Amino acid sequence: MPVKKFSIGELVERIQGADLLGLSKGITLIESTLATDRLQAEELLNQLLPKTGKSIRIGITGVPGVGKSTFIESFAEYLIKEHHKKVAVLAIDPSSQQTKGSILGDKTRMEKLAANPNAFIRPSASGSSLGGVANKTRESLLLCEAAGYNITIIETVGVGQSETMVKGMTDFFLLLMLPGAGDELQGIKRGIMEMADMLAINKADGDNKIKADLAMGAYKNALHLMPPHTYGWIPKVSTCSSTEGTGIESIWNTINEYYSTVGESNLKEIRKNQNAEWLSETLQNRLLEDFLVHPKVLKRLPKLKQQVVDGQIIPSFATQQLIKLVLSGANKQ
Amino acid sequence: MPVKKFSIGELVERIQGADLLGLSKGITLIESTLATDRLQAEELLNQLLPKTGKSIRIGITGVPGVGKSTFIESFAEYLIKEHHKKVAVLAIDPSSQQTKGSILGDKTRMEKLAANPNAFIRPSASGSSLGGVANKTRESLLLCEAAGYNITIIETVGVGQSETMVKGMTDFFLLLMLPGAGDELQGIKRGIMEMADMLAINKADGDNKIKADLAMGAYKNALHLMPPHTYGWIPKVSTCSSTEGTGIESIWNTINEYYSTVGESNLKEIRKNQNAEWLSETLQNRLLEDFLVHPKVLKRLPKLKQQVVDGQIIPSFATQQLIKLVLSGANKQ
Repeated sequence: MPVKKFSIGELVERIQGADLLGLSKGITLIESTLATDRLQAEELLNQLLPKTGKSIRIGITGVPGVGKSTFIESFAEYLIKEHHKKVAVLAIDPSSQQTKGSILGDKTRMEKLAANPNAFIRPSASGSSLGGVANKTRESLLLCEAAGYNITIIETVGVGQSETMVKGMTDFFLLLMLPGAGDELQGIKRGIMEMADMLAINKADGDNKIKADLAMGAYKNALHLMPPHTYGWIPKVSTCSSTEGTGIESIWNTINEYYSTVGESNLKEIRKNQNAEWLSETLQNRLLEDFLVHPKVLKRLPKLKQQVVDGQIIPSFATQQLIKLVLSGANKQ
Repeated sequence: MPVKKFSIGELVERIQGADLLGLSKGITLIESTLATDRLQAEELLNQLLPKTGKSIRIGITGVPGVGKSTFIESFAEYLIKEHHKKVAVLAIDPSSQQTKGSILGDKTRMEKLAANPNAFIRPSASGSSLGGVANKTRESLLLCEAAGYNITIIETVGVGQSETMVKGMTDFFLLLMLPGAGDELQGIKRGIMEMADMLAINKADGDNKIKADLAMGAYKNALHLMPPHTYGWIPKVSTCSSTEGTGIESIWNTINEYYSTVGESNLKEIRKNQNAEWLSETLQNRLLEDFLVHPKVLKRLPKLKQQVVDGQIIPSFATQQLIKLVLSGANKQ
């Protein structure tokens, strides 16, 4: 059966009409590495841009085993049922560089949510660099907004680099933790705790309840030692249980409190800064990629590289030779 | 009093003649950010390259307070006195980006060693990026080798990124630790422990001796769980006291053992790989720097950036516009 390919116009119309097939195909276009697809994806995004920006963007992270999928499922179902929201869940999987596939966002993990007509779940893009994966996720988030999702959740796993990226594309950053303080205080990187707008100790049910309360106290103390967040927000700590559904409403209330504390104009400022940062990252990644496949570079690089490897010339010198080849040509025009 | 400026020819001659003033001036040239100085520095380095590569390159790291300066002072004095070596000590200070000055390599910290005619101590270069600082340190190391220093030590502080850089420019990587296991096992990043060729528990004197021995046992166990190093080297753990001078000789013996285990041809291979990696890093850093000051980019970037910030166009699109301006011009020639 031949797969029908939509035109950009059709995709724009379908996505604005909240059509799931259109949204999926749009994201597939964004994830494609073909140069022609890239151009089309850019056109699609530029056309849809005026329809974006209206969702509450939430980043969620935590170490493997903290129960991110179960939490997101409970949280999204609560938002859909109690607040009539439409929720999109995207993932950034730092391991997708190695595997070239997606583990973290495996659709089957959120079966119940996936079947909900007001939810959209998309596993992590894959790519040759984490920066590339993050870029695709940012672009996909914009498509989800254009399709009318008013809550967008970006999920990642607590290992460092990917958190910074999720922080850079969301408004509110939620760190899920396990009960049993002490260990955890050291296990999670300080830098990730500093980024969080809220810490929620998950699995606070049954025998874990007391441990979770103790952990909450410990984290509250730890947060006192952290530098204050911009725009007057003081990070909050709470407990929750995805299986029992407790603490979910309180997290939603905290998110709303965050938005009213920070205020609309500050939020606009935050997102503008995020856009500027996004441009820098894209420039850095794409410039090198394009440079390395430039015909003149392809021709000269092997010999220069060999000379560097053999210790005959220094990298700065080789680099200047290569850059001059490509940049000064344009300079003379 | 006017400062005499040496010609490149004079610098080459002075450095090869182990002249301290020439070496200092050469490194100052390397550290300069002036474009004309850069060209001269490259010429100097290319001329001296055949005289480089003959030193034992040792990277040393550890958390603040572990006693790196005191250790390096004892170690270098031992090498000079007992083995008639000439020792150069350079530093990479990750904080030099913020302060634009140098803290870590403060000369006054190693006063006694600095007065030794067979030692050369140079504080960390400063720079706008850690990559830039590291690049200058690598180049300075080559000058030290050309000046006849047969032991080169690169010191950094245990915070992550800078360790990877020091590992990438040295043969042997020594991690200094404090006595009192347990805490430390968690305090130091696993990634840094994995990089180390040797762990030395410093300050193993007086009341600390027993704690240091316990820590040694704990680290030996921890190292068993780490992936094995390439070329058959099994990381070693020892204790030492810089103030009492104990354990210093054993560290030197371990370094020699490392060199004979790895073997000359493998070492050559390691250094070749380091050179290739150095080229990649330099390319990535310099390409973006030069791109951002290209006249065409300077002219177009502000408006495109504003459009990205305001959410009117996406970064990929802006990036393609900018890259096309500069790269395709050269392409047509």
